[in-house]
Amino acid sequence: MDSQVVTFLISCPDNKGLVAKITNFFYSKGFNILSCQQYVNAIENMYFMRIRLNAEGTKISKSDLETKFLELAKPLGFKWSVNYGDKKLNVAILVSHASHCLYDILERQREGDLDCTVKMVISNHEKLRPIAEMFNVPYYYLPVTKDTKEKQEEEIINLLNDNKVDLIVMARYMQILSSSFINKFPEKIINIHHSFLPAFQGANPYKRAYERGVKLIGATAHYATEDLDEGPIIEQAVERVTHDCTPQTLKRIGADVERLVLAKAIKCHIQNQIIVSKNRAVVFPESGE
Amino acid sequence: MDSQVVTFLISCPDNKGLVAKITNFFYSKGFNILSCQQYVNAIENMYFMRIRLNAEGTKISKSDLETKFLELAKPLGFKWSVNYGDKKLNVAILVSHASHCLYDILERQREGDLDCTVKMVISNHEKLRPIAEMFNVPYYYLPVTKDTKEKQEEEIINLLNDNKVDLIVMARYMQILSSSFINKFPEKIINIHHSFLPAFQGANPYKRAYERGVKLIGATAHYATEDLDEGPIIEQAVERVTHDCTPQTLKRIGADVERLVLAKAIKCHIQNQIIVSKNRAVVFPESGE
Amino acid sequence: MDSQVVTFLISCPDNKGLVAKITNFFYSKGFNILSCQQYVNAIENMYFMRIRLNAEGTKISKSDLETKFLELAKPLGFKWSVNYGDKKLNVAILVSHASHCLYDILERQREGDLDCTVKMVISNHEKLRPIAEMFNVPYYYLPVTKDTKEKQEEEIINLLNDNKVDLIVMARYMQILSSSFINKFPEKIINIHHSFLPAFQGANPYKRAYERGVKLIGATAHYATEDLDEGPIIEQAVERVTHDCTPQTLKRIGADVERLVLAKAIKCHIQNQIIVSKNRAVVFPESGE
Amino acid sequence: MDSQVVTFLISCPDNKGLVAKITNFFYSKGFNILSCQQYVNAIENMYFMRIRLNAEGTKISKSDLETKFLELAKPLGFKWSVNYGDKKLNVAILVSHASHCLYDILERQREGDLDCTVKMVISNHEKLRPIAEMFNVPYYYLPVTKDTKEKQEEEIINLLNDNKVDLIVMARYMQILSSSFINKFPEKIINIHHSFLPAFQGANPYKRAYERGVKLIGATAHYATEDLDEGPIIEQAVERVTHDCTPQTLKRIGADVERLVLAKAIKCHIQNQIIVSKNRAVVFPESGE
Repeated sequence: MDSQVVTFLISCPDNKGLVAKITNFFYSKGFNILSCQQYVNAIENMYFMRIRLNAEGTKISKSDLETKFLELAKPLGFKWSVNYGDKKLNVAILVSHASHCLYDILERQREGDLDCTVKMVISNHEKLRPIAEMFNVPYYYLPVTKDTKEKQEEEIINLLNDNKVDLIVMARYMQILSSSFINKFPEKIINIHHSFLPAFQGANPYKRAYERGVKLIGATAHYATEDLDEGPIIEQAVERVTHDCTPQTLKRIGADVERLVLAKAIKCHIQNQIIVSKNRAVVFPESGE
Repeated sequence: MDSQVVTFLISCPDNKGLVAKITNFFYSKGFNILSCQQYVNAIENMYFMRIRLNAEGTKISKSDLETKFLELAKPLGFKWSVNYGDKKLNVAILVSHASHCLYDILERQREGDLDCTVKMVISNHEKLRPIAEMFNVPYYYLPVTKDTKEKQEEEIINLLNDNKVDLIVMARYMQILSSSFINKFPEKIINIHHSFLPAFQGANPYKRAYERGVKLIGATAHYATEDLDEGPIIEQAVERVTHDCTPQTLKRIGADVERLVLAKAIKCHIQNQIIVSKNRAVVFPESGE
Repeated sequence: MDSQVVTFLISCPDNKGLVAKITNFFYSKGFNILSCQQYVNAIENMYFMRIRLNAEGTKISKSDLETKFLELAKPLGFKWSVNYGDKKLNVAILVSHASHCLYDILERQREGDLDCTVKMVISNHEKLRPIAEMFNVPYYYLPVTKDTKEKQEEEIINLLNDNKVDLIVMARYMQILSSSFINKFPEKIINIHHSFLPAFQGANPYKRAYERGVKLIGATAHYATEDLDEGPIIEQAVERVTHDCTPQTLKRIGADVERLVLAKAIKCHIQNQIIVSKNRAVVFPESGE
Repeated sequence: MDSQVVTFLISCPDNKGLVAKITNFFYSKGFNILSCQQYVNAIENMYFMRIRLNAEGTKISKSDLETKFLELAKPLGFKWSVNYGDKKLNVAILVSHASHCLYDILERQREGDLDCTVKMVISNHEKLRPIAEMFNVPYYYLPVTKDTKEKQEEEIINLLNDNKVDLIVMARYMQILSSSFINKFPEKIINIHHSFLPAFQGANPYKRAYERGVKLIGATAHYATEDLDEGPIIEQAVERVTHDCTPQTLKRIGADVERLVLAKAIKCHIQNQIIVSKNRAVVFPESGE
C-alpha cells in the first residue's frame, strides 16, 4: 500500500479486550497508529472506534487487509468501514435562494479547508448561478412544482449518479426531499436546519424564535432521514440575541451560525469522524490532524 | 424625596417625541437621568423605556411625582411601573430535590450579589432543609399528593401573603403549579426549565437530549404562565456537550447552566430590567450599575 | 432633507439634562427618533449618545441642521459627527497571503450584508489577485522591501486619496504600517489581530498560544494606532481549543474567528455604532436596524 | 484487587505499537478497559495515554501490577502514575477576601460533585471564617506581613503535611507564594487567575481590562509554578462584556467565570485527567464517567 492515512470506523457490541485486539491487529500488519479514538456507550453496551493508520512501510494490499480484518470483525460483530485517503469525496450542493452557505463551502473547498471535489450545484432557482460560475462549478437549474417533483428528483438522482457523488449537501435547499430520494442516500445527505433542533422544527424558525422571544438562536447540521428534522445531529451552535432583534436581524445573525455549523459538519463527514448509531451521531474530534 | 435611585418602566404605542417628552418631564422635576434605555418594536409599533433617575436634590414627594407622571402617561397610553429602590423585594424559593440552584441563590443573596430578602424556602420534601438552615432561612415542608394539591397550594399562598412575598422562584421545584395559583402572581413567578426552550418542553429533558444526540444543552429562565414552559423567556444559555455524555453527565453539566441562568434572571427582575409585552420579555441590560 | 436615516454620534462631559436637551432639539426640528442609545461613563464623567433619526417630513437642510446643532453643541462641549446615510463608505482592503478575511468581506459586500463600496484590494503579494478578480474588484500589487517601504506607503496613500477611501481594512496585511501612515487616517484603519488582545501581542500568536497551552484562542478587531496592537478594541471573540491542536490547527480554527470578528467590526464602523474615547471604543449595539 | 476503577496516566516518546502494547498488557492481566484516551504530540514526538480500567475480577495485587508494569514502562521510557480510586484526595483551600470560589468548592464537595475531602481552609484574613464554619470545615487564620511571610508559609506547610494534603487550591488567595513553597508541591497547587492568561498577568486585571476596553473577560486555572501566572493552563473561559461595564461590573461578571473555571480544573485534577508536559497541560475530557 502507498504511504497514506487509512481510517477505520468500527462499531460493535462492547466486549473485554477490544482495544487490544484491534490495535494488535493493525500493529501486526505493520501499520503505525496515528490516533485511536474510542467511545463506550455503557447504556447501549456498544463500542465505537475511529483509528487512523499510517500505511507507510506496509506491504499488505487493500484487499488482503480487508479480508484479514473481516476475520477479526465477523466474530465480534463489527459494523465497519474503511477509507484509504487516496480519493477525494465528490460533493453536490443543493441550494435555493440563500447564498451564504454556498459561498462558504465553495470558498473553503477552493482554499483547501474542505478536502473534496465539488462536482455541481443544483438548484430549483436560477438565482445563485453567478456564484457557482465565479468558482467554476457546474450549475444545474431544475425547477420544481408539485406536479413535477417526482420527475425533478429523478433528474437530480441521475446527475448524482452520473457524477459519482458521495455526499449531498442541502445548503438551505428549501424543498422537502421525498422519502424515496432520501432512502437512496443513507448517511450521505447533510442538511442545515436554521434553528437549534429540536426547537422550531419545520418552517419559519426565525419568525417563531422572534415570537417566542428567545435569547439565543442556533443552527443544526444533521443527516437527512425520512422524518424531517429528526435525523442524527452532527453539529450545533448558537449565538446570543436580544429582544431588540427583528425576525430579519435574527435571520442575518443566524446565517453566520448556519454557515459555520454546516462547514464543520461537512468537514467531519469528509474526514471520517462520524459513526451513526441509532439516531445519534458519534462525532470524534480531530486528533492532531 | 431622599437621595436614591428611582426606576420607571414604561411601555406604550410608539409615537413621535416620546423620548423628549419623558426625559423632559423628569428633567423639569429636578431629576438627573442616570441611564435611559429604549426599545422600539416597529413590528408591533410599541415603545419601551427603562429610565433610572437620581432623586438627590429633588423636593417632589412620591405621590406628587406619580400624580404628575399620570398626567403625562394617560394621554399617551403608558403602561408603567415605578420602583423607588428604598425597599428590598421579598423572595420565596420553591425547591424539591436538586440543591444547586438553592445554594446559588442563598449564597448570592448573602454576599450582596442579589439585593433582596429571602423570606423562606418552601419544599414538598424535607431533603434540602439543612441548606436553608446553613443560611438561617426558614424552611417550610409542605408535602403534596394528588389529593392534597389544592390544600398545599393554599398553604403556600398563605405563607407568601403573610410574608409579603414579591417574587417566587421555582428553583427546580418539580411540581406543576395550578393555573389558579399562577394567575394570582402574574410576572412574579420565575421558573428555571432545564433545557433550551422550546426544545424539550416537559419532563425528562436531559434524557431526551441524550436520545436526540444534541451537541449543546441549555437552560431557560422564564416567567411562569398558565401554559407550562410557554411563559416569557428572561434568560437562556447553553453548554457544549458530546456524544460521550450520559444523561447523568448532561444533568451535571446542565446544572451549572441552570444555576447561572436562574441567578441572572432573578437579578434582572430585582433590578427592574424587565418589561413583559405579549409573550416576550424585553430585558434591558445593566447600564453602569 | 430627503427621507433618510440620519445618525449623530455625540460625546461630551456628563451633565444634568443632556438627554432631554438633545432629544428635544431633534424633536423640535421635526425628526422622529428611531433609536436613542446612551452611555454614561461615571468614572470619566463622560456622556455618549448615538441617536438615529428619521428625516422624513423634515424641511431643514443639512447645513441648517448642523448650524443649529452647533449652537447646542458648543456650550455643552460636544465632540460630534453626523452621517446622513445617503452615501456609502468607500473601503480599501489590505491583504498579504491569507484569503479567508478577504473572501468574507467581498462576499458580504456583494450580498448586501456590508453596505459599502469596496474600491480596491491592495497587497504586497500577487497571490490573492484571483479572488479580487472573481468579485470584480481592482487589485493593486505593491511589493515592499525595507528600502522601499516609504515609497510603497506613499503609493498606497495616493491610491486611497484618489479613490476617496473612507475606511481601510487590514485583512491580515502582514506589514507594519508606519506611524506617519497611521496618523493620516485616525479611526479609519481597522486591523484584525489573530489573538485575544492583549494576549500574544506581536508576531506568531498561534505558535505562542500552542506553546502556552491555552484552552481558548481568539481574535481582536481594533483601530490601528501608532502603538502596535494597542488601539481601541472594537470586537473580540474566542473559540475553545484543546491540547490536541497543533499551531496549524489553531491557525485554521482561528481563521473562522478572525473573519467573523473583522466582519462585525467593519459593520459596526459602517453603521456608525462606534465612538472612540481615550483608548476605549464605545460600541453601541444595533437597535432595530 | 477489589472491584474498582484504576487509572493510569502515561507519557513517553512516541513509538510504533504503543497502544497495542499497553492495552495488551492490561488485557492480559484481566482488566477490562473502560476508556483509553490518547494524544500524540507529533511536534515533540511524545505520546500520552489516560487509561481507565475495571479491576473487577482481577486477582493481581497493586504491588504486583506495578512491578509488572515497570517491566513494560522502563524500556519504553514511560513517565507514569497510577490512581486506584480507593482513596479520596485531601484538599486545602487558600483564600483571602473573595468568597465566591470558596462557596463554590465547598458546596460542590458537599453535594458530591467534587469527590474529595476538604481538610481545611487557610487564610491570611478572618473574613471568610463563617463560610468555612457553615460547611464544618476547619479554618486557620494565618496573617502575614512582609516580615512574617517565611514563618507563615512554614506554618501552612506544617498544616498541609500534618493533614496529608494532596492538593492545594488557591481560591483567590491574594498572596504570592514563595518559590521555595511552590517547589515543594509540584503540580499540586491550582491557582485561579482572574483574567484570560497571558493577557493581564499580574495585579488588578479587571481595572486594566476596563482601561483597555476589552469586549471579553476571562479566567484561567493553572498549576502554580515559580514563574508567576506562567504555569500550565488547565482550564479557561470568557464572558462577553461591553463598554458599559465598570471595573466593578467586570469583577462581578468575572467572578462567575472564575468559580466555574476553578471548579472544572479541580475536578479534572481529582479525576486524573491531566498530564503535564513541559509547560502544557494535556487535559483529557471525561469519557463516560
